Parts: sequence; structure tokens; C-alpha cells
Amino acid sequence: MATPITPPRGMRDFLPAEKARREHALGVIRRSFSAHGFDEIETPVVEDVERLHSGLGGDNEKLSFSILKRGLDGDDLTAAIDTGDLLSLADLGLRFDLTVPLARFYATHRAELPPVFRSIQIAPVWRAERPQKGRYRQFVQCDIDIIGEASQLAEVELITATAAALEALGLTDCTIRINDRRILNGLLEYCGFDETRWPQVLISIDKLDKIGADGVVAELAEGGADAAAVLGGILSDLEPHLADGGVELTVEAITSILPEGMDTDAVADLEALAHALDTLPPGVALRFDPTLVRGMGYYTGTIFEIAHPGSGSSVGGGGRYDGMIGRFLGTDVPAAGFSIGFERVVDLIEVPEDASAESVVLVYDPSVPLDRLVAIKSELIARGHRVRLDRRAKNLKAVLDRAAAAGFRSFAFVDADTADAAALQVKPLN
Amino acid sequence: MATPITPPRGMRDFLPAEKARREHALGVIRRSFSAHGFDEIETPVVEDVERLHSGLGGDNEKLSFSILKRGLDGDDLTAAIDTGDLLSLADLGLRFDLTVPLARFYATHRAELPPVFRSIQIAPVWRAERPQKGRYRQFVQCDIDIIGEASQLAEVELITATAAALEALGLTDCTIRINDRRILNGLLEYCGFDETRWPQVLISIDKLDKIGADGVVAELAEGGADAAAVLGGILSDLEPHLADGGVELTVEAITSILPEGMDTDAVADLEALAHALDTLPPGVALRFDPTLVRGMGYYTGTIFEIAHPGSGSSVGGGGRYDGMIGRFLGTDVPAAGFSIGFERVVDLIEVPEDASAESVVLVYDPSVPLDRLVAIKSELIARGHRVRLDRRAKNLKAVLDRAAAAGFRSFAFVDADTADAAALQVKPLN
Repeated sequence: MATPITPPRGMRDFLPAEKARREHALGVIRRSFSAHGFDEIETPVVEDVERLHSGLGGDNEKLSFSILKRGLDGDDLTAAIDTGDLLSLADLGLRFDLTVPLARFYATHRAELPPVFRSIQIAPVWRAERPQKGRYRQFVQCDIDIIGEASQLAEVELITATAAALEALGLTDCTIRINDRRILNGLLEYCGFDETRWPQVLISIDKLDKIGADGVVAELAEGGADAAAVLGGILSDLEPHLADGGVELTVEAITSILPEGMDTDAVADLEALAHALDTLPPGVALRFDPTLVRGMGYYTGTIFEIAHPGSGSSVGGGGRYDGMIGRFLGTDVPAAGFSIGFERVVDLIEVPEDASAESVVLVYDPSVPLDRLVAIKSELIARGHRVRLDRRAKNLKAVLDRAAAAGFRSFAFVDADTADAAALQVKPLN
Repeated sequence: MATPITPPRGMRDFLPAEKARREHALGVIRRSFSAHGFDEIETPVVEDVERLHSGLGGDNEKLSFSILKRGLDGDDLTAAIDTGDLLSLADLGLRFDLTVPLARFYATHRAELPPVFRSIQIAPVWRAERPQKGRYRQFVQCDIDIIGEASQLAEVELITATAAALEALGLTDCTIRINDRRILNGLLEYCGFDETRWPQVLISIDKLDKIGADGVVAELAEGGADAAAVLGGILSDLEPHLADGGVELTVEAITSILPEGMDTDAVADLEALAHALDTLPPGVALRFDPTLVRGMGYYTGTIFEIAHPGSGSSVGGGGRYDGMIGRFLGTDVPAAGFSIGFERVVDLIEVPEDASAESVVLVYDPSVPLDRLVAIKSELIARGHRVRLDRRAKNLKAVLDRAAAAGFRSFAFVDADTADAAALQVKPLN
């Protein structure tokens, strides 16, 4: 008995039923995005290691898988020991998101792309996370991004296309929570936090649903109790409003829950956004949540996140990141993106039975000449059927059960005296 | 001006037109394989490095990209220097083919799979080859394999399904050259080569089309001039017969070109195979080529390779490899596979225009309120159109040319007085 072997730690094989389910969902998402005018692109799974570690990936850079240079020798290793730079042994790395590759792609191909470029990327990414339930080291992201559009049209098209994809997947009961980094910044300014501390404060606020307002205050008190106390009071006031995912996206609702005297231009923008999104499908609700942070440091304006009652964490998110795409070009380019967390979404959907082709299992007797068996199979395929051969066995029930479990709908026997496909008696399975 | 940046060496980005072309071709191949009863599976892109270097991958193992272990320190590097084992720094590697992962997958999931398992794998693989025209470091393979079927039914189903995929892609004029490793072995025995030299002799024969019979003799003369001379004579005799890709797959044709007195059971099997493949589409010819070798060492029986006049090298190949799949199980399992070289095939096909949805570019004036613009777009999408927004510019011709180049078929203006989608005047592009 050989030792049991498994896929690499934290990664998964997909057997036929699950693979079919995934391909179905990816097809639905791809078609929704395409109908909304986005164009699919593809980049290699690896990027140059310096580019992956250029600071755009935040904490994900630390989770990167790096590719060993080919042809290294002892001297290279000695040099790496001397400098302490182990990354010098790598020249490439597996991408940890689709945004850094998109920035690189845009820098490479800008001249060939339209002034406003709407991209689809549906592809795996890799992170060396500690494996745990629902977290994988290889997982698929479905990203759409609009590059070159500075107006809110970008946010509107991204949210509309994503909502359409969720609806097409049969996901009702989604909530898209929306905030604006400028509102968060206004809040921190109002509380009196020094700007150097903002990133740290945002990280604490991001944990509000886990640690509560008191927890946030406790985390931040060391760096200045006054500002932390002010923030704590505001968060406590906000918490009841946010219990059902947020508040309505109207100027009145937004300003009524923000502290009086806090000044921000972003409120009117959010209301305009809500107005333009009036025709979203009924299964997708929009809510304002001033405590929504989104992890990545590169967001500059609107941010959004999809919640679904069937998933403990968000099933997608995105926002505006005007400073980033141009990084490799040395110029600013406006951009915004929305990413569906495919692994979470695919667990929530029900896949309809494939009605595109009548599928038949031909249960054949070994005495049937090979050429005739193949001719009968080919004839059924030519008529539009999906056909599988399965050898007749003593335990016929096991053969038919297996066919039904594999999603086939009907079967027929092929015996030595079955002359051709016309002679088959096709019967339903079950 | 930033420095120009490119994808990693030997790898490619796919812009929208090329990506659409590839997805179209992959969809055609996937549907053909599925209709023939094969089931798609997926494995992670990486496998444990020891498994990739277990000897099953032949020369491809040397071209493997290895993943640096996380959390290495100087001691690990020192140990690698001391032992000279640089691979000890890696725990994973990018797969270089889809056959090693399939063997691992089968070992992991055998209990959940049917006794005869027909798999589809459509996925990228990676090889650190010296980049050159038509050779890439990341490329897609489309493999079907049948595991657990010892009879010729496996070869017949593989070749039938592959031929159907080629036909569905619009590739006529394909030739599938067929041989059997047992015929090659019989030939080498007849010539008097010592069995230890067979692998080396096969490598030389594999180069026959490049170096000719004289070249093969020259390469092999050192190890024993007599056997090499006998082989050279046979190859010279064969060459004219093989000029058009091979000879007919009949016992008469096969035995007439093999040296008299050479004994092999495989000839009758090949004729039975040809008989069972009588119904192949007219664009796919079957030919016997006793000099066909196929590179990999694991083949045990029938081998085949697809030639197309549009491609200098083969566009696909495969064969029976009964000893291999069971390697990780410690038991023999019969298996055969056929792989389409997607990168070569995709360059040969013509992609029909997408007729599935009427596509419209809405050329909008910036004065149109955002909510109305989005409502008009949504209405067209709901009617089944693919819709892209493009802002009206002074150079209207550039906007419309761009729309046509992106594959859109019609356009309409949206101005401040366009009330709704019913008010649009949709006109054809061009």
C-alpha cells in the first residue's frame, strides 16, 4: 500500500462535479461582465519579483510564493547569506492579486488600449496563508477594472456590472456597503488623530465588527487617549445604525449619523452615486457604512464591499485607486475596480441542471465489435447528445447508479446484435 | 518617461482580441471532449517538488520552475551549499506537463472515480525553455486521458474525440501519424541493438526528419557500427514511403514496409485500430509511421502525433502509458492520453464573428445625467445586447473606428435630450 498522497498544502483538486459547477459560475460571471462592455485580458501567473515587492500589494507581498532562479550556484547562496537578501535567489513570483499585474499590463500596452479601458480578469492568485476553513493558497478572483475614467461613471458601471453578475448567479439578498476614504479621513481628522497614525487607526476600525468600539479604543488609546475616546464615542453611536449593514445612501441619512461639524465633500458624491444606481436589481441593496475601511492602502475614494447572509466574510469588494495604475508609468491614471471573491460565491449558488444536451450512457457488452460501438457513439454525438461508454457488469445497478451520479439522464444497452444507433432503446435513468 | 516594462521573459499578455480568440477555441475543444463523455478536472498549478522530480517528466524536469520555501534562513542556505542540493530550498514547483499532476490526482482520488475514468485537463504548464519563436515559458495544453481501460477502446475514443475537436475548430487537412512502441522495439531488436541502448537509438530516430538516415547512422555508429548500418538501410528504404506522412494503416501496407523477418504482434493491433477509426471526419487522415517515436520514456504501446501543413512541428500527440499512472499508487493501471498543443492550434484557426449578441457602442455626451445614461445602458443589456459606453469626442471617426476594431457592430448617440433607450437611433458601424 503506497502512502496516501494529497495536493500541496492549502490547495485543492476539483473533481468533475465541482469543476463543472465552477465553470458554470465563471461562465455566468464572464457573460455578465462582457454584456456590460468589459473586455477580458490575461497575464502570466508570475511577475518579476521586484514588481511584486514594490509596495503595492500591502501585507499580501509577505505571502508571496517566489520562484527560484535557474542555474544558481554556491556563490549565489553565499552572497544571499552575506547580504541577508534571500529574495535575491528569486527572479519571479506567483501573483498574489490581479491588481499589480493589471498595473504592469497597462504600463506595457497602454498605447494599444482605448482611453477608457474596461478589463475583466478571471484567474487564480496565490497566497502562502496559514491554511484554514475557507482560505486557500490558490484561489480564483473575478476582477473588473476601469482605467482612465475619473468620473463616477466608473463606480456606477463597476457596481452595476457586479450586481448583474450576482443576480445572474441567482444570489439575491446581497448588500453592497459603500464608503469613501475621504469620509474616513474626515472622521479621523475630526477626532484629532495625527495623519501619520491614520493607517494604523484604519486597521483598528476595520476590526470594529470583531472587537467592538471598546476594543478599537483600547487598541488606539496608547497613541493618544483623547482622539481615541472621541472616535470611540462616535463608533458607539454608529453601531446601532450599522446593525443591518448600514444606512440609506441619502445626504440626510449620511449626515445624520456623521458627527456634527465634520466636513467632507464626499457625502454629496455618495448620494449622486446612489441616485445613478437606482435601477440595481431588487436582490442587491446599497447601504452606507462610514466604518467600512477595505484593507488595501491604495484606495483613494469610493470603496465598496459585498455582504451576503450565507457568508461570514465579504464576498467581494473594491474601490477607487487613482494613484496606483500609473505607478509603473510614472504618471497618475484614474482607476477603480471591483473584485468578486469567487471561492465564497461559488459555495452560495445553486447550479441548474445542464439542459443543453441530452446525455446518454451506452452500457455495452464486451462482445460488441469496437468499430460498431464507436460508430453508434459517433452517431449519437452527431445528433447532439453527450455520450459515455460504460462496460456492462454483473452489478448493473452499480453501473446505472454511477451514470446517474455523473449527471447522465438516460441509458441504452449495446449488445452484439445492436446493428446501429437506430436500434437503441434509450431509457431514462432513475 | 518610465522605463518600458514587459511581461516576464518568454511569457505573454493576451489583449482582448487574442484573449477572445483563445477562449473561443478552448470552448470548442472543451465541448467536443465533453460530448465524447470526458469529464473536466483541475489540479493546483504547483505540485510537491519531489513528485515533479520523480523521473516521470523526462527532460522536462530540468526545465521546471521551483518555488522557494517560505521562512528560509542562512542555515538552510549553508546546508544547501554543503550538500550541493539546491532543490532542498524549494518545496513546490510549477507543473511542466499535465500528466504528472494527473497521476498524482488519480492516486489521491481513485476511490471517488469510476473504474474507467475519462479526464479533460485544459490548463497552462510552465517550462524554463530558452525563449524562441513559437516556444513559450507558459503555455496551454488540452489533454484527454482514459485511465483504467486496457483495451484499444481507449485509443479509439481518444483519437475520435481529438479528431472531432480538430474538425469543430475548422481544421481540415490534419494527419494523425500512428506507431506502436512495440514495433519500434521490434525494429531495434531486429537491427541487433543492445536493449540498454534503445532509449538512445530512439532519440536518434526521432530526429530522422531533421538529420536523415545518414545522420542517424553517424550518431549511432560509435556504439556499434553493424546495428547502425542495418538501421540506416531500413530507414533509407522507409524514407520515400513516409514522404507524405506515412503509409496506410493496413496489415499489408505495414508489413510491406517493415523488414522481412521482423516479428511483432502490434501490426494486427494497428490494423484493428484503423478499422475502428473508419468513421473519422474527412479532414483527418490516419497514417502509419514506423519511425514515429514521441519523446517521453513512459509510452508502452500505441503512440500518435498530429501533423498539419500550417505548422512546422506537431500540433498534438499522445499514446498508451500503462506503467505510469500507478506509480504513485504502487500498482499498474492501464492508461492512454492525447494532448492538443493549444498554442500551435490557436494560430491555425479562424474565429467566426460572435453572432450571439448584437453589440452596441453608446457614444454619449458628457452632459447626459449619469443615472439616465446608466438606465439606457441597462435597458439595452436587458434586451440581450452587449453595450459599451464611449464618450463623444471631437474626432468622432476615431471613436467609431475604435468601436469597430473592438468588434462592436452598431452604435447610437446619447445626448442630453435622449429620454430613454426607445429614443435611440441605432446604426450599423462601417
